[in-house]
Amino acid sequence: MDTGITATFLVSSPDQPGLVARLSGFFYELGLNIVDASNHSDVHAEAGPRFFMRLVADLGGLASPDAARRLGGSAGRKALEAGFGELSARLGASWSVGYSDVLPRVALLVTKDPTCLYDLILRQRSGEIRCEIPIVISNHAALESVAEGFRIPFVALPVTPANKPEQERQILERLRENHVELVVLARYMQVLSEEFLKAAPVVINIHHGFLPAFQGAKPYHQAHARGVKLIGATAHYATKDLDQGPIIEQDVARISHAMGPDELVRVGRDVERVVLARAVRAHLERRVIAEGRRTMVL
Amino acid sequence: MDTGITATFLVSSPDQPGLVARLSGFFYELGLNIVDASNHSDVHAEAGPRFFMRLVADLGGLASPDAARRLGGSAGRKALEAGFGELSARLGASWSVGYSDVLPRVALLVTKDPTCLYDLILRQRSGEIRCEIPIVISNHAALESVAEGFRIPFVALPVTPANKPEQERQILERLRENHVELVVLARYMQVLSEEFLKAAPVVINIHHGFLPAFQGAKPYHQAHARGVKLIGATAHYATKDLDQGPIIEQDVARISHAMGPDELVRVGRDVERVVLARAVRAHLERRVIAEGRRTMVL
Amino acid sequence: MDTGITATFLVSSPDQPGLVARLSGFFYELGLNIVDASNHSDVHAEAGPRFFMRLVADLGGLASPDAARRLGGSAGRKALEAGFGELSARLGASWSVGYSDVLPRVALLVTKDPTCLYDLILRQRSGEIRCEIPIVISNHAALESVAEGFRIPFVALPVTPANKPEQERQILERLRENHVELVVLARYMQVLSEEFLKAAPVVINIHHGFLPAFQGAKPYHQAHARGVKLIGATAHYATKDLDQGPIIEQDVARISHAMGPDELVRVGRDVERVVLARAVRAHLERRVIAEGRRTMVL
Amino acid sequence: MDTGITATFLVSSPDQPGLVARLSGFFYELGLNIVDASNHSDVHAEAGPRFFMRLVADLGGLASPDAARRLGGSAGRKALEAGFGELSARLGASWSVGYSDVLPRVALLVTKDPTCLYDLILRQRSGEIRCEIPIVISNHAALESVAEGFRIPFVALPVTPANKPEQERQILERLRENHVELVVLARYMQVLSEEFLKAAPVVINIHHGFLPAFQGAKPYHQAHARGVKLIGATAHYATKDLDQGPIIEQDVARISHAMGPDELVRVGRDVERVVLARAVRAHLERRVIAEGRRTMVL
Repeated sequence: MDTGITATFLVSSPDQPGLVARLSGFFYELGLNIVDASNHSDVHAEAGPRFFMRLVADLGGLASPDAARRLGGSAGRKALEAGFGELSARLGASWSVGYSDVLPRVALLVTKDPTCLYDLILRQRSGEIRCEIPIVISNHAALESVAEGFRIPFVALPVTPANKPEQERQILERLRENHVELVVLARYMQVLSEEFLKAAPVVINIHHGFLPAFQGAKPYHQAHARGVKLIGATAHYATKDLDQGPIIEQDVARISHAMGPDELVRVGRDVERVVLARAVRAHLERRVIAEGRRTMVL
Repeated sequence: MDTGITATFLVSSPDQPGLVARLSGFFYELGLNIVDASNHSDVHAEAGPRFFMRLVADLGGLASPDAARRLGGSAGRKALEAGFGELSARLGASWSVGYSDVLPRVALLVTKDPTCLYDLILRQRSGEIRCEIPIVISNHAALESVAEGFRIPFVALPVTPANKPEQERQILERLRENHVELVVLARYMQVLSEEFLKAAPVVINIHHGFLPAFQGAKPYHQAHARGVKLIGATAHYATKDLDQGPIIEQDVARISHAMGPDELVRVGRDVERVVLARAVRAHLERRVIAEGRRTMVL
Repeated sequence: MDTGITATFLVSSPDQPGLVARLSGFFYELGLNIVDASNHSDVHAEAGPRFFMRLVADLGGLASPDAARRLGGSAGRKALEAGFGELSARLGASWSVGYSDVLPRVALLVTKDPTCLYDLILRQRSGEIRCEIPIVISNHAALESVAEGFRIPFVALPVTPANKPEQERQILERLRENHVELVVLARYMQVLSEEFLKAAPVVINIHHGFLPAFQGAKPYHQAHARGVKLIGATAHYATKDLDQGPIIEQDVARISHAMGPDELVRVGRDVERVVLARAVRAHLERRVIAEGRRTMVL
Repeated sequence: MDTGITATFLVSSPDQPGLVARLSGFFYELGLNIVDASNHSDVHAEAGPRFFMRLVADLGGLASPDAARRLGGSAGRKALEAGFGELSARLGASWSVGYSDVLPRVALLVTKDPTCLYDLILRQRSGEIRCEIPIVISNHAALESVAEGFRIPFVALPVTPANKPEQERQILERLRENHVELVVLARYMQVLSEEFLKAAPVVINIHHGFLPAFQGAKPYHQAHARGVKLIGATAHYATKDLDQGPIIEQDVARISHAMGPDELVRVGRDVERVVLARAVRAHLERRVIAEGRRTMVL
C-alpha cells in the first residue's frame, strides 16, 4: 500500500561488500517499497573508498505485519529510525532522514538586492522548492515590503563592526525560535563569523565564481579588466573558510568584450539566482552529501 | 578479492517491491562485490511502472566458497549467468551482461565525410571508447586511406538503387564475419532498409536535429532560411522509422544571423561528432536501456 | 559635447557599395558622435543581398554649428529624422529610430502563470529592461494581485469562443489608450486572431520549442514520451502563422530520463522566462531587425 | 566588380568622432566595396576610450578609375597599404592587414598528446581553418607518424634543462625558415622562455582553466579533490606571465561527483581542443585584437 508519504535516507559509510544489498534489504524485510535509490562509491576519497546512498522509501508499509513483527507492534517513524540506526552502527555509517509530509523550515538572509529573494519565494510558492519560509532576516530595511507582500515576517537587524557579535546572536535566536533547519544567504552582504557558523544550522551561500576566479572587491570590474569570456556562479555550504565550503552547484554564462561591468553584473545576477535555486532545491530534496571538501549530488 | 574484472548487468522489469534488495542480494550472497549500481523507476511508462537497473559486479568473488556453494563447484561466467537468469525469470525481467575483459566489436559505416570517422578512431585509440574496430565499411572509396592509416581493414561496397539489396546483404555478411555487436553510422549517407535493420546488430545513427526540426534535403540551408539561433544533433538507435528511434544523446550549439549555411555546416559537424561519441561511449559502457521510444541512460 | 542622450537608428536596405560610409558620414557631417554601430550584409537573402545596420548617435551634437548649418537653425529631432529620411530614400532603405530619453511603452498579456510576469516586472524595476509597463491585460483575474503589488493597472477581459472578436477589440482599445508600442505575451494562453495581429503593435511571444519540436496540447508530456534529452524555448514575433514568426532568441536546458513531465514543466518554465526576457530586452534596445522569416540581432 | 579576393584590416585607435565614417569612407572613395565590418568602442579602457574596427574590403575595386586616380596608376596592395597607413597616422591608430589569397603559415608545437594535433590538422584539411601548416615541432618523437600521415614535415627537438636555450634557438630558426606567422601550442608541455616569446611570432596557448582555477601539477586531480561541478579551458595569447596573456576564448563542460580524475581528463581534453580550434580560427580570420590584458573578438 503506497501512501505517497515517503522517508528519504542519506547514508555515508566506508565502502564494504554488500552495502546496497544490506541497506535495501532493511526496507524489503519491513515490507517498505523503495521508490527511488541511487548510490556512489568514491574510490578516490582521502580516508579510503567511501560509499554514499540515497534511499526513498514509501511509508505505507509501516502498517504491514512484516513491519509490526520486526519493529514491534508500534511500528512508526521512531521505531524505523531506531532500526535503521542499529544497521548503520554495524556498518560504521552516518545517516540522516527526512519525511515528505514534514516541510523543512528555511530562513532567507538578505541585504538590499531583491533578485534572489523574489526568485526563491516564487519558486517556493509554485511548489518547485518544497519548504516553509518562516522568516526573512536582513541587515537593512530595504526589502521589508517584498517579504510583507508575500506575508513573510521580516526582521531588520542592522550591523556595525561594534555590534556584530550581538547582531549574530540575535540572528541565531530568531533561527532557533523559528525552528530553522536551513539558512540561505540570498545575497546577504556580510561575512558571518566562525562562531555563528558553528552555532547555526546548515548555511548555503551563493558566490560569483569567475574563470579564473576573482577575489576581493568589485569582482565584475576585475572580470571586465581581465577580458574573460565566461562568468559564473557557485553555490556552496558556508564554512569558516570563506567561499571554500563544499560546492553544491555551478554554472556559467557567456559574455563578450562589448559588455561593460554593468552588463556583467546583470548577466551574473541571472546565473547566481538560477544556481542558488538549484542548490537549495537539491539540498531540500536530500540529494546532497558533503564529505570533506566535496559534495555528492545523488 | 577484487580482480578488476567486472560484469555489467542491465536489467529491465515491471516495477515491484524489493527489486533493488533482491537484485543486489543475488551478488551479495555469492560474495561478489557491487562496485557501481544505479536504478530508475519510470512511473510514466505506458504499460505500467517499470524498473531499470545497472549493476557492475567485481568477478573476483567467483573464486570464493560462497560462489562455489551456490553456483556449483565450477562457479564461472556461465553459472553466474544461469543463476541471474533464474532470478530474472522469477521477476519477469529482461537482462543482458557484458564483461570488462571482452571488448565489444564495433563496425563503422561511412561515406565521404571523415570527421566522425577520425573522431571515433582517435577516441578508441586513446582508450576513451573501449572497443575493437575490426572493420570500416563504406559505399565509397574516399576514406580508405584514413582507415588504413590506422591499420583498420576497409571495405568499399558501392551502392546503386539496383544493387542495394545485394549491397546490404554484403554488409551483413561482413558484420557477421567480424562478429560485430554494434554498428555506428558515422555519417553514412544511405538509408538502410527495414530488412537490413532487422538482420543487423544494434545500429546507432547521428542526426542533425534542429530547433525546430528540419527534415528533407539541405537542412542547414533550411535552418539558415528560418533564422534559428541554435542548431543541434541527436544520436539515436536506428529503427525502421527513419530518425525516430530512441534518443541516446542530444546537444546544441549557438549560432548567429551572421553565419551563412557553410558555417552552420561547420558548427553542426562539431556538435554531431561530440554527440555521436558520447552516445557510442554510453552504449559500450552498458549505460543505455531502450524501452519503447525512450532510453534510460543509467 | 556628449549629452548622454542617444538616438538609435535601425536600417535595412538592398546591399550596395559605400553604405557604411554614407550612413556613418551622415552623422559625422552633422557633428554627431556615433557611440555604437554594427552592421551585417546578408548575401543569402531571397530578394538579393541585403544590408542591415544599427547606429547609436549621441544627440549632443544637435546643438553644434554643423548641425545648424545642415539641418537649419532649428536643428532638432524632427529635422534629424527628415534628413535621415532623405538619405534613406536615396538608398532604397527602410528605417526606424528611438530615443534613449523616451521609454517604450509595453503591455504584458498574461493568463494564470505568474512566472514570466514577475520576471519581466522585476527586470524592469531593476533597470535591466528599459521601458514603461502601463498595463497588464489578462483573460483571467488570477494575477491581479501581482500587478497591483507593483502598482501596475490590471484589466481582466475574460474570453469565450462567442465574445472573442469583441474581447480582442477591447484589448486593442486598451493598447491604444495606453500608447503601447510593444505587446509581450507572457504566457497568455489564447491564440490571437489574424485581425488582431494586423491591428496591434509589434507582438513578442514565447514558445516551448523542443528538439524535435512538439506541437499541439501537452508538449511536455509528448517530450517525456519521446525521451528527448534537451528541452527549449523560442521567443519570436507573432505573425498570423502561429509559432512561425521570426525567431529572436532560443535556448535549451538538459534533462534526463529520471525527470517526469512535471519536472520538465519546471525546467521548461525557467528556460522560457530567460529566453523571453532576453528577446524583450534586445527588441527594446532596438537590436532586432526582422526580414522575411529571419531576424538579425545586431 | 567583386573578385572574391578580400583584404581584412584590423584597426585600434583612441576614440574620436567620425572614426567609422572616415575609415569606411577611405574604401568608399577608392571604389572598394566593404563586405563586412564591425567595430567596438571600449569606454572602460585604462588609457581612455578606445575604438576597434575590423573591415573586410573586396579588392576588385583596385582596378577601378577611382582607385587609380587616388592611389596612382599602379593601384595595388602596396599603394592601398600606404594610403591606409597615412590615414591611420592622422588618427593615431595602429593597424594590420591580411589578404584572403595569402594563407597564413602556422606551426604546431606538440609533445605526446595527439588530440589537439589531429583536431587542428583535420580542421585545416576540411577548410574550416584557412592556413598552411608547413611544420610540426615537438620535444619528443611520439607524434612523428601523425604528422607524416598528413605529409607535414616533423622536427623532433628534445629538450633538457641544459640545452633549453639552444633548443629554443633551433625552434626559432625553424619558424623563420618556414616563414611562420602564428605558433600554436597544441599541448606542448614545456614552458617557453621570455626570450623565446620576444623573438617568436604570435603564440596561442591552450590552458585547462577551472572554476575556481587550479594551478600547479595535476590540475584535474585538484579539481576532483575540490569537487567542482564544471571544468573548463582557456585559449590565450602567450606572454611572459605564464597563462596570464589576453584571453581569446573559453568554454566549460559539466561534470559530476561520479567522475574520477581520469574522466575529468577526458572531458577536459574535449573542451580544450574545441576552445583551441575556435581561438585559432578567430585569430586567422583576423577577428581578434589584443589590447592590454583583454581581447576584442570582432
